[in-house]
Amino acid sequence: SDLLIAQAATLESRVPFLHFFDGFRTSHEVNKVALPDNKTVRAMIDEELVTAHRERALSPDHPVIRGTSQNPDVYFQGRETVNPFYAEIPDKLQKAMDRFAELTGRRYGLFEYVGAAQAERLIILMGSGIGAAEETVEHLVAEGELVGMLKVRLYRPFDPQRLLDAIPLSVKRIAVLDRTKEPGADGEPLYKDVLGAFAQAYSDGRRDKLPRICGGRYGLSSKEFTPAMVKGLFDELNQERPKHPFTIGIVDDVSHTSLDWDPAFRPAASQGVTACIFYGLGADGTVSANKNSIKIIGEQTDNYGQGYFQYDSKKSGAVTVSHLRFGPRPINSTYLIGDNEAGFVACHQPIFLDRYDMLDKAAPGGVFLLNSHAAPEQVWDTLPGHMQRQIIDKGLSFYVIDAYRIADQTGMGRRINTIMQTCFFAISGLLEQEKAIALIKEAVKKTYGKKGVRLLERNYAAIDAALAGLHQVQVPSAVSNEAARRPTVPASAPEFVQKVTATIIAGRGDSIPVSLMPADGTWPLGTTAYEKRNIALQLPKWEMDLCTHCGKCPLVCPHAAIRSKVYPEALTAEAPASFLHTQVKGGKDFEPGTHITYQVAPDDCTGCGLCVEICPIRDKQDPKRKALNMVEDEAYHEQERANWDFFLGLPEYDRSKLKETTLKGAMIMQPLFEFS
Amino acid sequence: SDLLIAQAATLESRVPFLHFFDGFRTSHEVNKVALPDNKTVRAMIDEELVTAHRERALSPDHPVIRGTSQNPDVYFQGRETVNPFYAEIPDKLQKAMDRFAELTGRRYGLFEYVGAAQAERLIILMGSGIGAAEETVEHLVAEGELVGMLKVRLYRPFDPQRLLDAIPLSVKRIAVLDRTKEPGADGEPLYKDVLGAFAQAYSDGRRDKLPRICGGRYGLSSKEFTPAMVKGLFDELNQERPKHPFTIGIVDDVSHTSLDWDPAFRPAASQGVTACIFYGLGADGTVSANKNSIKIIGEQTDNYGQGYFQYDSKKSGAVTVSHLRFGPRPINSTYLIGDNEAGFVACHQPIFLDRYDMLDKAAPGGVFLLNSHAAPEQVWDTLPGHMQRQIIDKGLSFYVIDAYRIADQTGMGRRINTIMQTCFFAISGLLEQEKAIALIKEAVKKTYGKKGVRLLERNYAAIDAALAGLHQVQVPSAVSNEAARRPTVPASAPEFVQKVTATIIAGRGDSIPVSLMPADGTWPLGTTAYEKRNIALQLPKWEMDLCTHCGKCPLVCPHAAIRSKVYPEALTAEAPASFLHTQVKGGKDFEPGTHITYQVAPDDCTGCGLCVEICPIRDKQDPKRKALNMVEDEAYHEQERANWDFFLGLPEYDRSKLKETTLKGAMIMQPLFEFS
Repeated sequence: SDLLIAQAATLESRVPFLHFFDGFRTSHEVNKVALPDNKTVRAMIDEELVTAHRERALSPDHPVIRGTSQNPDVYFQGRETVNPFYAEIPDKLQKAMDRFAELTGRRYGLFEYVGAAQAERLIILMGSGIGAAEETVEHLVAEGELVGMLKVRLYRPFDPQRLLDAIPLSVKRIAVLDRTKEPGADGEPLYKDVLGAFAQAYSDGRRDKLPRICGGRYGLSSKEFTPAMVKGLFDELNQERPKHPFTIGIVDDVSHTSLDWDPAFRPAASQGVTACIFYGLGADGTVSANKNSIKIIGEQTDNYGQGYFQYDSKKSGAVTVSHLRFGPRPINSTYLIGDNEAGFVACHQPIFLDRYDMLDKAAPGGVFLLNSHAAPEQVWDTLPGHMQRQIIDKGLSFYVIDAYRIADQTGMGRRINTIMQTCFFAISGLLEQEKAIALIKEAVKKTYGKKGVRLLERNYAAIDAALAGLHQVQVPSAVSNEAARRPTVPASAPEFVQKVTATIIAGRGDSIPVSLMPADGTWPLGTTAYEKRNIALQLPKWEMDLCTHCGKCPLVCPHAAIRSKVYPEALTAEAPASFLHTQVKGGKDFEPGTHITYQVAPDDCTGCGLCVEICPIRDKQDPKRKALNMVEDEAYHEQERANWDFFLGLPEYDRSKLKETTLKGAMIMQPLFEFS
Repeated sequence: SDLLIAQAATLESRVPFLHFFDGFRTSHEVNKVALPDNKTVRAMIDEELVTAHRERALSPDHPVIRGTSQNPDVYFQGRETVNPFYAEIPDKLQKAMDRFAELTGRRYGLFEYVGAAQAERLIILMGSGIGAAEETVEHLVAEGELVGMLKVRLYRPFDPQRLLDAIPLSVKRIAVLDRTKEPGADGEPLYKDVLGAFAQAYSDGRRDKLPRICGGRYGLSSKEFTPAMVKGLFDELNQERPKHPFTIGIVDDVSHTSLDWDPAFRPAASQGVTACIFYGLGADGTVSANKNSIKIIGEQTDNYGQGYFQYDSKKSGAVTVSHLRFGPRPINSTYLIGDNEAGFVACHQPIFLDRYDMLDKAAPGGVFLLNSHAAPEQVWDTLPGHMQRQIIDKGLSFYVIDAYRIADQTGMGRRINTIMQTCFFAISGLLEQEKAIALIKEAVKKTYGKKGVRLLERNYAAIDAALAGLHQVQVPSAVSNEAARRPTVPASAPEFVQKVTATIIAGRGDSIPVSLMPADGTWPLGTTAYEKRNIALQLPKWEMDLCTHCGKCPLVCPHAAIRSKVYPEALTAEAPASFLHTQVKGGKDFEPGTHITYQVAPDDCTGCGLCVEICPIRDKQDPKRKALNMVEDEAYHEQERANWDFFLGLPEYDRSKLKETTLKGAMIMQPLFEFS
């Protein structure tokens, strides 16, 4: 609808409109929308204006020049010709909004006020933060607080009089929020515009008092902006002199701009909403399946649905967290699902158990669904102690499924998304089971139909097999795993890695205060060495007897997760028993007694299999056996962890003595770009 | 000095400084400067900071990463780390300014106030406009007016408190000037910053009244900004409610933003200053010679000098106007020489007599120097009547020299710059004649020395010959030329060309009001056809008997100023007697009786000679004679004007019947890119 209004207004005003989505929050949210019908579109767009627009296009049939080079004599005059076009935009846009309201009953304004009629504290903002702010204002007004908010729908051209007209005369203190930072300015653009509007109105006598106005930044780079923060802001406006400039949403222990907020605050709008959260691996299909789930629920039930997907910039192989909400009213909660809010928490990758405090999100009495190789009767003991504690304390229902096994058995390889989706519908009961399964299959057909019938059939088989593999686990009354949590990074890691990298890896980067970030963007090298993603389901295994030491496997590995090193045999005296090493081939280049090892970094390997793919050597007796082969074995993984640590401890061979122009020689050098 | 201060401050603050020249006005002005000596530079720059800066550079010897990709979790915090660096800049910059003051006695401030201690009207601006404003403020304060100005030296980081501290409490009304336009905003950046500073100070109780503040635009694209305009602005500030937003320097008859000003206003600073103005042709050397003249006067006399050079964006072949000022005090007149101000007006090209009202600039009792082929006793009658009238009414001394003849005789070709420069020194008497000539020769050596001894010797000869060729003309007491002024464009030109193009060509583009400029930048085609530059000293002449109709001359002409056309002979019945045409060669392609003409556009031709250069045909009897030859003959020029008009009236040959892939065929087509 807003695009349609903008299109109608730009055609009439001849000024281009920038209709913006402010970052991931809007562009990556899935929500139920009320699409204007074609009749409305027709009624909004004046055909004559479309024709006039087309006729102004450059054409060899009626040539003109546009944008001539001009001298100081006339440039300034030319620049001022556009003023009336800009001056007319507010009226023309409001006209388009009014026409849209007549046609659809949905009414917009350039500035929309929401709140108490006699509000004393006001916040002004635009963009996606409006959702969080509006929920908070409604909540506080219902509690009798004299607060309000102004939604800015047209930023520039800026219409100061319309802004003023929309704000109650009772307002005493205003906080203006900008989702941007202008270094060196004493405030951001919207703040300056609002301040100027009031100052001029007061100067002119159009207002008889000047409210106290402060401005601040929020949500940079799609940083979370929650009702709790909005509440914090209104609390600050209770001060006689609210902080200016402020920030909200971070801890600024350097210039102390940040406001406090109580993260436990929840607006009434969150009541009656079902919140579900899913931890998946980038590119594992979790996001696609969740998008389909929202569409199914949004279209097949009376519920409104909302989905938002948190991606890591490391994309494929990194975590993606899906936040889904359903409820009987439109959902404008433009923020992530918070602690103790999720009625349903799904962990699609068992490795995440160690890494993320995902049950912090679980609401008391909610559901926890885990994909795990562990059998239902054994799975409890695989959980970290603190998660067991949360399951018991919050009274969660706990379900487990070995989705990778089912995927493997039904020919889906490692694609578990539709299996997990089926379990979600089965447990949540949002739809009747049979209907849900039919709709999942339909969605699968829509999403993957073009890739062939076989793929569809495999998916259908996986969906059908999912329910049989889903088990509810009887939750014991006591914690069985008393082991301390495995630290995110080893204690030997440098201080920066301990304080910053590890916090980011654990998904708690939001809590990092300003003082821990480098002021000039300088980052130490090699921090990725501590970011163990541990996502390989299979690892390459070295067959020493076959290997010719050609060096192709370290060459092809994009993450330097398989490496070769040469060293004197004597250094292996203290090696783990399973550590493999052998006399290096090509004796004339090395001293006698020089050994070589090909070693995988088990927690950095993604299990992609490229090293095995490129390995040119096959066993003549057993042609399926190469000098490297992928194996799936938890014990092997554990063993190679120790071998990798030992391997790292071996000295690097003197680079200057290696033949850098041969593949083998180059691959023995320490890689200077390593890991993800 | 300001660069040195900025360098010291950026080293100390670690924030990059943008030290700007606002357009041509600063970058193209030549002025006498007081250069800080090396000792001052050393004292200003802390070596340790230089070393620290270098050590922060990226280096493989101590590698780091700068500018990592960040997720929403930490980006915001990272962005806020820089605040203290920005916050400290005002102090650090003022400290650098203070250190510079200690070392040199020259004192700067972040905000510098000039004006009456009890000023009620204030203007605030930055950049080169300060010169014009300061002259005006000094003039008005001397007349007892309560006005002042604030020079902004540090724009951002913006320090509102220092701004307020610099402004007298008595100020009631403020105009803030921005040399930029922000379409859609309700004011430009500096205006908004000033308004915000006052509004917050008033809110906080740091100020007990809010002055009335208006903002406006001036000088876009180096548009003139004069003391007269500043005076107009102060007049507007006498209003209870000064216009906002305003423009100054143009006539805005569309949105009526422009303020009036009296162009006759001159500040006292202009007294005692010698103003000289020179009309030359782009690339004719006038600008270089004038730069040398300023250096000579600035270095060899006690005078301060200033030069500014008005270029046309059409560059080579278009007009360049040199504005030179000399005087006993530093010259900060950051604007062009106005009407009735120039004690010396030089016209280096006789064709400009018709085109520019150059004697409007002449001060009563001043000098007019003309380069003309006309003999001293005949030159008066070659002047347009209105110029004769101005010479008589203003009592100007009138000098003439045939500089092109002297240049030709001394082997200088068409380079007349040093000849005219010599005349300027001879007439102005700024230096003793012999000394002046020695200095001109020295400057010539500096400028052209690398191009060889012969060129220098020719220049010296031209300089020596100049004085003998310079004649003062006895000014008659009456106008002899009663003919009306030749219009800039013919009466048949379209309305847009009459109103806009012609005004621009005549050098009066500043007077074009906003309403005459196209709002969407759409410009009609072919306006250059009316811009007759008439700069050719020689024109190509067609030798019909030799020509093979090969088409190379129209091909090579960059301006389509020589063309060929074929047409039925019958159409030449009414042709001017001198119009040349002959049976086209290559009979099989054309009907019998089809004639061809090669025609030069005499007022568009630049006389470059490329067409003659490329002409492949020579007369066997007289090998110097080609099928095209350059001739210098005023009568021929006049005759070809009529022939060109007739030629244009002949119909274009049907393009579809021409062999477009042959040179000759393609060259008979109407050129679609034509003229300068």
